[in-house]
Amino acid sequence: MESISVFAPATVANVVCGFDVLGFAVNEPGDEVIMRRTNKPGITISKITGDDGRLPLNPTKNTVSVSVQHYLQSVGRTDIGLDIELHKKMPIGSGLGSSSASTVAGLFAIKTLLGDTTDAANLLPFAMKGEEMACGHGHADNVAPALLGGFVLIRSYEPLDVVRLPHPAGLWCAIVFPDVDVPTREARQIIRTKIQMKDAVTQWGNIAGLVSGLFMQDIDLIGRSMQDVLVEPVRSMLIPDFYVMRQMAMDMGAVSFGISGSGPSVFAFTKDEETARRITQKLQQHLTNIKIGSNGYVSTINDAGPRVIG
Amino acid sequence: MESISVFAPATVANVVCGFDVLGFAVNEPGDEVIMRRTNKPGITISKITGDDGRLPLNPTKNTVSVSVQHYLQSVGRTDIGLDIELHKKMPIGSGLGSSSASTVAGLFAIKTLLGDTTDAANLLPFAMKGEEMACGHGHADNVAPALLGGFVLIRSYEPLDVVRLPHPAGLWCAIVFPDVDVPTREARQIIRTKIQMKDAVTQWGNIAGLVSGLFMQDIDLIGRSMQDVLVEPVRSMLIPDFYVMRQMAMDMGAVSFGISGSGPSVFAFTKDEETARRITQKLQQHLTNIKIGSNGYVSTINDAGPRVIG
Repeated sequence: MESISVFAPATVANVVCGFDVLGFAVNEPGDEVIMRRTNKPGITISKITGDDGRLPLNPTKNTVSVSVQHYLQSVGRTDIGLDIELHKKMPIGSGLGSSSASTVAGLFAIKTLLGDTTDAANLLPFAMKGEEMACGHGHADNVAPALLGGFVLIRSYEPLDVVRLPHPAGLWCAIVFPDVDVPTREARQIIRTKIQMKDAVTQWGNIAGLVSGLFMQDIDLIGRSMQDVLVEPVRSMLIPDFYVMRQMAMDMGAVSFGISGSGPSVFAFTKDEETARRITQKLQQHLTNIKIGSNGYVSTINDAGPRVIG
Repeated sequence: MESISVFAPATVANVVCGFDVLGFAVNEPGDEVIMRRTNKPGITISKITGDDGRLPLNPTKNTVSVSVQHYLQSVGRTDIGLDIELHKKMPIGSGLGSSSASTVAGLFAIKTLLGDTTDAANLLPFAMKGEEMACGHGHADNVAPALLGGFVLIRSYEPLDVVRLPHPAGLWCAIVFPDVDVPTREARQIIRTKIQMKDAVTQWGNIAGLVSGLFMQDIDLIGRSMQDVLVEPVRSMLIPDFYVMRQMAMDMGAVSFGISGSGPSVFAFTKDEETARRITQKLQQHLTNIKIGSNGYVSTINDAGPRVIG
């Protein structure tokens, strides 16, 4: 195989009460990587679209090529030549795991190109290297669901312990990205480092309830459990009309509503596609009314992770 | 029916990473209540055994009669007369939900005596009234598993939201009570009220892993997840040679080891009865060596909650 095109999904990390430990993948949006074998050893990036010129073509500075390079070193194939095209299909800095989707697409492309049939989960450490470059530390709550699909729990980092969780089949996700700038590093810095024990107890009661609801296919329990008393009260301040949008979504029948990653994207779970579509439209209309541009997505949970599309 | 005898199980609350939200019931030890109809309206307590004279015979001050009285008021049957015998089969102040077992036995006795066929879960608010009297606040992480059996998550108190969790069939529990005094109130007071966010994240990653392991019947994941970075480091100081006993248990093949409730009892999960027996013996021998008396119990998880025994 000389050329391959791979899609990898956007992801919602910090799932409400699951700050830093829980993420899930959606079927839309996602990024595409086209990778071609070349004759000259080393990696080049010939084209990036959809990034408004914000991402580096320099292969030593782009998360996709850097993580692919780590993979090639680990399998002893730095001799080969690769050219990468990256097609961003979602906004950068949206809180939807933009860099993770690109990185995972790149890693799945090289794995498939080289006929590596080992478990895709083995790519996780390389994807985390990409995250380290993009965000300053190697978090896994976007790359793990992007790579494995579905809901993923990062129980522990040292040692890395990743658990795939089931979810109810009928769960839909409405996502809206309000086009305001919330850099990940800043969003992280405003989180309190000291918290009340009683709030932490509330939070871990809720994550235990959320995980139970996922296993029990109990959408109402999932909804009741998706409350965040620690991170959302702070990060919501960076998102225009967060509580107005939440009220709108809940009034329209959302199961739950929260911040995606470190924002500014927000998401709602619903029990059907129609409700998700109506919520997305309503929130986008509201953002338009307050003079803020937005993107909207409606999707089921992505269970497959990355896939070859050409 | 004029007379009934009921057993209710001991419980392990604050299950390691599940401080304040997770508990489970065991088949041994447990308390027994004998309840008889009398001709004179009101409740009397004619006998308490196994308490070394520590529990009040005054029905307005005993958790069993107080919670039964709350139940009778709610069903409009304060006209009837009852006499209660309470037979304590476990030490008081052991961290094994001693008062909860008695309370649940009493409530299940009156429910059965009156032919009340509604769900036993409906007794929970009355049992919590008993806890409120015994411990100063109406916690549910002992009474809920004592009443419902199995593993129970208290996701939320306001509103009360209780979730029954499954568990692997082959899970055994070794329990050792070192006979030292650790009053619940004092054990609670030494817990820090302010904690680090990063420790809380570790804790909720672990409880999410524990709950996942229970649903997945994955005993190794259960073991990996049962780590407590917040409460155990403080409460273990009140338990003689806690870390020595933990090392002994883990060296002998325990899946996990922790404090039961607020201590001083400790417990280990094992994959078989023989390992649980050997651990109990070893820990009790160690306590004897350091001149501390102890009780030891070996049990599977109790899935039935209280039961009529005569």
